Amino acid sequence: MDVVAALAAKRDGREIPAAQLRELVLSFAREELPDYQMSAFLMAGYLRGFTAAETAALTDAMLASGERLDLSELAGPTVDKHSTGGVGDGTTLVVAPLAAELGLQIVKLSGRGLGHTGGTLDKLDAIPGMRTELSSRELIDQVQRIGLAVCAQSTELVPADRAMYALRDVTATVGAPALIASSIMSKKLAGGADTILLDVKVGSGAFMHDTHDAFELAQTCVELGTAAGRRTAALISDMNQPLGTQIGNAIEVREAIEVLRGERTGRFTELCLTLTAHLLVLTARAQDLKDARRQAEQALRSGAALDRFRRFVETQGGDPAIVEDLSRLPIASVTCELSASQEGCLESVDTESVGRAAASLGAGRMRKDDQIDPAVGIELCVSLGDQVAGGDPIARVLARDKQTAERAERQLRDALTWSTETVVPPPLIHDTIEPRAPA
Amino acid sequence: MDVVAALAAKRDGREIPAAQLRELVLSFAREELPDYQMSAFLMAGYLRGFTAAETAALTDAMLASGERLDLSELAGPTVDKHSTGGVGDGTTLVVAPLAAELGLQIVKLSGRGLGHTGGTLDKLDAIPGMRTELSSRELIDQVQRIGLAVCAQSTELVPADRAMYALRDVTATVGAPALIASSIMSKKLAGGADTILLDVKVGSGAFMHDTHDAFELAQTCVELGTAAGRRTAALISDMNQPLGTQIGNAIEVREAIEVLRGERTGRFTELCLTLTAHLLVLTARAQDLKDARRQAEQALRSGAALDRFRRFVETQGGDPAIVEDLSRLPIASVTCELSASQEGCLESVDTESVGRAAASLGAGRMRKDDQIDPAVGIELCVSLGDQVAGGDPIARVLARDKQTAERAERQLRDALTWSTETVVPPPLIHDTIEPRAPA
Repeated sequence: MDVVAALAAKRDGREIPAAQLRELVLSFAREELPDYQMSAFLMAGYLRGFTAAETAALTDAMLASGERLDLSELAGPTVDKHSTGGVGDGTTLVVAPLAAELGLQIVKLSGRGLGHTGGTLDKLDAIPGMRTELSSRELIDQVQRIGLAVCAQSTELVPADRAMYALRDVTATVGAPALIASSIMSKKLAGGADTILLDVKVGSGAFMHDTHDAFELAQTCVELGTAAGRRTAALISDMNQPLGTQIGNAIEVREAIEVLRGERTGRFTELCLTLTAHLLVLTARAQDLKDARRQAEQALRSGAALDRFRRFVETQGGDPAIVEDLSRLPIASVTCELSASQEGCLESVDTESVGRAAASLGAGRMRKDDQIDPAVGIELCVSLGDQVAGGDPIARVLARDKQTAERAERQLRDALTWSTETVVPPPLIHDTIEPRAPA
Repeated sequence: MDVVAALAAKRDGREIPAAQLRELVLSFAREELPDYQMSAFLMAGYLRGFTAAETAALTDAMLASGERLDLSELAGPTVDKHSTGGVGDGTTLVVAPLAAELGLQIVKLSGRGLGHTGGTLDKLDAIPGMRTELSSRELIDQVQRIGLAVCAQSTELVPADRAMYALRDVTATVGAPALIASSIMSKKLAGGADTILLDVKVGSGAFMHDTHDAFELAQTCVELGTAAGRRTAALISDMNQPLGTQIGNAIEVREAIEVLRGERTGRFTELCLTLTAHLLVLTARAQDLKDARRQAEQALRSGAALDRFRRFVETQGGDPAIVEDLSRLPIASVTCELSASQEGCLESVDTESVGRAAASLGAGRMRKDDQIDPAVGIELCVSLGDQVAGGDPIARVLARDKQTAERAERQLRDALTWSTETVVPPPLIHDTIEPRAPA
């Protein structure tokens, strides 16, 4: 292949034939195509965009670069749920056991957090003893036994995506919708589940700040999944404030357990129920969303979902006693309370900054090799539209020491904007992209 | 500096501050900034363009990456002439001795050919014994003695340009006007001459196919030279057909000697006289172009320019007897004649293809490490607008063997388009960009 001619074609906005795109991606994954040519290609693609056919070819090529998880031993529907990344978003911890309890098989390959967003694996690691590295054999056996497994993506799946992402990260080409979509979907397709539900976040703490962009991304992902023969749907959910009240690792596990105990209501609980309901409808386990919702609520109320979570923790080597005794989870020694300096209504949250404040405490990674402290984090006591009086508690910072706590407090205070007028909070679900008949 | 932020800024079309551009270029030249970030920057710049301030900053940074030739020992005007690259364009071989004969000091750092374009150094190398590597000391001494030196750019000048060009070449980012202008002008400014005349080629054998683009490039170069305190002007000359009748190395030297002998007229001779006349006016050695032209014609007619050429060849170690005896130049053993298959008028020449045909014979390089064969080439017997009858000779191919000759013949035939109607040839000079008062 004439690589320079292909770069010139993308540069000039011409469509690249699928075979050429495949060769570009695969030769890059084999370390034959040099980084500098791939980065020029990525920048040209960022600025010129990719057609639907090109996006499909990129996804196929990334998928072809590695192995695929073979789930053919699992009878019945296998499902995967994927969030594009947010703050205080521990839905997997609730949705996976809840959906498993309702008869679905959850095969969830998760990632670690980077930047302001959290990662499911880091949250699981906060549970004493929990293992997140499973072999394919262990994973399939576990799903057969208890209906769910949440673990790290094995290194053999989609190596091209890992290499491309590392390059995009240092060349300002992360944000191209087609590249995001093919990155997400190649991993989901390699994960093998026959039903895929995407939770595309939009807002100040999401990758997509604009509803239109989020819709485009969701649409593209659904098309890619459908074309690959998977039943694929997407929700566009709000990330203009942290989803739950807790931003950290152990504290997010705690919040998830409280939801599973039926002790919490609010946006986080609501999104978990909505996602689960969609999974039930997608897999024809419910007649409609209303029926599905009723099933999900019942599984929470009965304690069956909590029990499924306990079995999940136990099976992956974690301490099952955390379910009854939350004090067994690590907790930071320093706690600082933030209170409102005057009365007002919470108008906006710079959610990315809140995520960064939590990361700066040790709850996340600003660099790939940063160590996570499972015990630290931020508890936010207010939501958009809440009215507070001067002196009311607005947040609690859990830190390793006074110094990092005070820095996070300042970041947090700067991230919140108050109004003297009434503020209408955004909806939790902005849009839904229904599945089409699989190809 | 936050490199990713700078890449994002260029990607989004924002202007990059001069200090950041300087740091980008210099850290790349020091091999600190990785290739993949520079290539993403180059592609973003290709697609988003560069402002005048950015182009100036890029040029300054490239200049700052290496040494500069110090010509302060040379009393009187020092001049440099630069062609953006064409086919059958040996003007330096004529203009340098002609202008030197008329009192100018020519300090010409030349390059080798790449792709379809020829390079002055390759042509000089066709002269038995000729040296093209001179130290700065030798160069200055030679200019003091005989008024001209044409040699290779020393490796210490503008290393950033060499590194950037190598990367642009393999990432489809050669064609960005600002990058071309800063590449040309950083080398010219480092070369030290106080007067710079640019011969910007336009047409089917030039880098710029469009007169408007060529004008923009010429204008940018003149602005960069003027801002750096050099008297700078540009001609935009036609490259819709090879300039001379010969395309190769030894055969182009032969043609140049024939022009210096006063034996040839035509576009090549005409452009040599025009360029020399402009140099004389730029350096105030002539009252106007008419006076300058008369001086140049006189120096050709008298044999003084030819004599200056002989001294130049001799001083750089070449065989001066070639001037009287052209048979001392290497000549290929196989000659094939092409004749017209029917009557017609030459309507267009794919000049790049003609250049490639010559390169495929061994007269040029398709890759940097290709070896040049000085003896091969193509002689074109027709010009745009010429009327031929069936059987008339249209070209002669000089080759190493029958096989390469036949391949070049086919390429050449495909490169020529004939019309049954009268064709008006393009003008030789499309435009002139006059110097402004130096800054």
